[in-house]
Amino acid sequence: MTDGGPGFRDWVGAVQQRTESALDRFLPPETIAPARLHEAMRYAALGGGKRVRPLLCHAAGALSGAAPEALDAAACALELIHVYSLVHDDMPCMDDDVLRRGKPTVHVQYDDATALLVGDSLQSLAFLLLSEHCAVAPATRVALITQLAVASGSRGMAGGQAIDLASVGLELDVEALEFMHIHKTGALIRCAVKLGAACGELDAAGTAKLDHYAARVGLLFQVVDDLLDCEASTAALGKTAGKDAAANKPTYVTTLGIGRARERARELHDEALDSLTGFGNKAQRLRELADFVLTRQN
Amino acid sequence: MTDGGPGFRDWVGAVQQRTESALDRFLPPETIAPARLHEAMRYAALGGGKRVRPLLCHAAGALSGAAPEALDAAACALELIHVYSLVHDDMPCMDDDVLRRGKPTVHVQYDDATALLVGDSLQSLAFLLLSEHCAVAPATRVALITQLAVASGSRGMAGGQAIDLASVGLELDVEALEFMHIHKTGALIRCAVKLGAACGELDAAGTAKLDHYAARVGLLFQVVDDLLDCEASTAALGKTAGKDAAANKPTYVTTLGIGRARERARELHDEALDSLTGFGNKAQRLRELADFVLTRQN
Repeated sequence: MTDGGPGFRDWVGAVQQRTESALDRFLPPETIAPARLHEAMRYAALGGGKRVRPLLCHAAGALSGAAPEALDAAACALELIHVYSLVHDDMPCMDDDVLRRGKPTVHVQYDDATALLVGDSLQSLAFLLLSEHCAVAPATRVALITQLAVASGSRGMAGGQAIDLASVGLELDVEALEFMHIHKTGALIRCAVKLGAACGELDAAGTAKLDHYAARVGLLFQVVDDLLDCEASTAALGKTAGKDAAANKPTYVTTLGIGRARERARELHDEALDSLTGFGNKAQRLRELADFVLTRQN
Repeated sequence: MTDGGPGFRDWVGAVQQRTESALDRFLPPETIAPARLHEAMRYAALGGGKRVRPLLCHAAGALSGAAPEALDAAACALELIHVYSLVHDDMPCMDDDVLRRGKPTVHVQYDDATALLVGDSLQSLAFLLLSEHCAVAPATRVALITQLAVASGSRGMAGGQAIDLASVGLELDVEALEFMHIHKTGALIRCAVKLGAACGELDAAGTAKLDHYAARVGLLFQVVDDLLDCEASTAALGKTAGKDAAANKPTYVTTLGIGRARERARELHDEALDSLTGFGNKAQRLRELADFVLTRQN
């Protein structure tokens, strides 16, 4: 992790901790039926992950003056969508992976049917958090739900997964690759910034600038992911390294080469920071998060 | 199908047709990327099914004076949740079925990964319909979303699936069996009636009576399903007959025997009708639907 500005590490730790504690509160306890499903949902969602989407959501909310309590529900909804996609993506019929966040994947720890239902149930819970637990006006809740549904559905994250599957073994140009990633990872990251901002007050011009930032950070996240997949170890990542190459998937590294991929990361990072011009100190966490996404080691 | 009262068949046909046409409008076209995913979503959702949940939603909305346009969005959201659960339930890691609504199941027609993403995307779309397309006040939309999320999640339909999986090979008593079905099928059917009623105006006492009706119809639906699974042919059902027995699943028939299961269906039907006392003619479609669920042949 980058050191960031003063207090950045503490802020990251605090957001991660409040997200963990909010997830623990929002997830059904293992004591109520069906106990095994609830246990598996908690296994999937708790105790791991960088919580990048919650961090972006809280950072955008800090800029728009949102109440941290409203942001908790939005941050957890985003994280649950992300976790459900990981659980399904790791299943044998998709990427067939055995390790995630340093633990056996859900279908390995439980079974395929349970993994399927865990993902399905986490998705429903994500929408429930926004509708029931996000302390903003009803019209704002409706807007948040619309944004999350679009970002996670066939024209967002799930659509990106479909494009990813269809591109195995193909040589994509950088445009086609970015089209895939704008959907697969970018849509939900962009949504994280939108939801955080929408929990507070921000004018249309400010919202557009933030969205530009978020789009760059979403792509940046994926370029760095591709670099780490080919450069870092499985132990450092907490998930299987080198799996894109093994699966014959096009990545920024296969498409651009390592050197040009690193340059692209730097460009995206700089463009993200440029979008924040004029926000002053209120955007400090967002700037530090762009640095963090660029320099992260796992 | 039962003849019902005057005009019942026409009303059923009209609701089925407007549901089909609304789904066609709400589902992304095959012409936008990812085209294959959108094609598969449409394959799963269009051109089949009895549309029991939309029928219940429209019938409850007729009682509460809801606008048909608002009901279309709610009815389609319910149907999309139902269809996503069928698509996932038919996958090899769950029931491994090849036939649904008279057609090859989605994973047979496409592939397992596509079926997984189709289900995931249909769920997101269901919530999008309520948040974006249901023409009721924002606070009502939020309430509808909360109800749908609870009914479809781990404490509703998906939880029922988990209990179902865990009960394979077990002998359940009728209480345990009903606990499973209250979740697996009952929750969404109950939600269909709630959503339809909530799109209009109904006082708390009326809402409670309708909910009692819906809980009975939900169980009735499942008892009849179990009877049909052991008595009807695959051709008549449009899905594999006899699969509960083949999968060694406890059903009303294995738990109660055919004779007692038929009696239980009749009891549930009568209790459902009793709940509607006092609504007069406004509840006519709901009464006819209880008859229909009792006497359906597929």
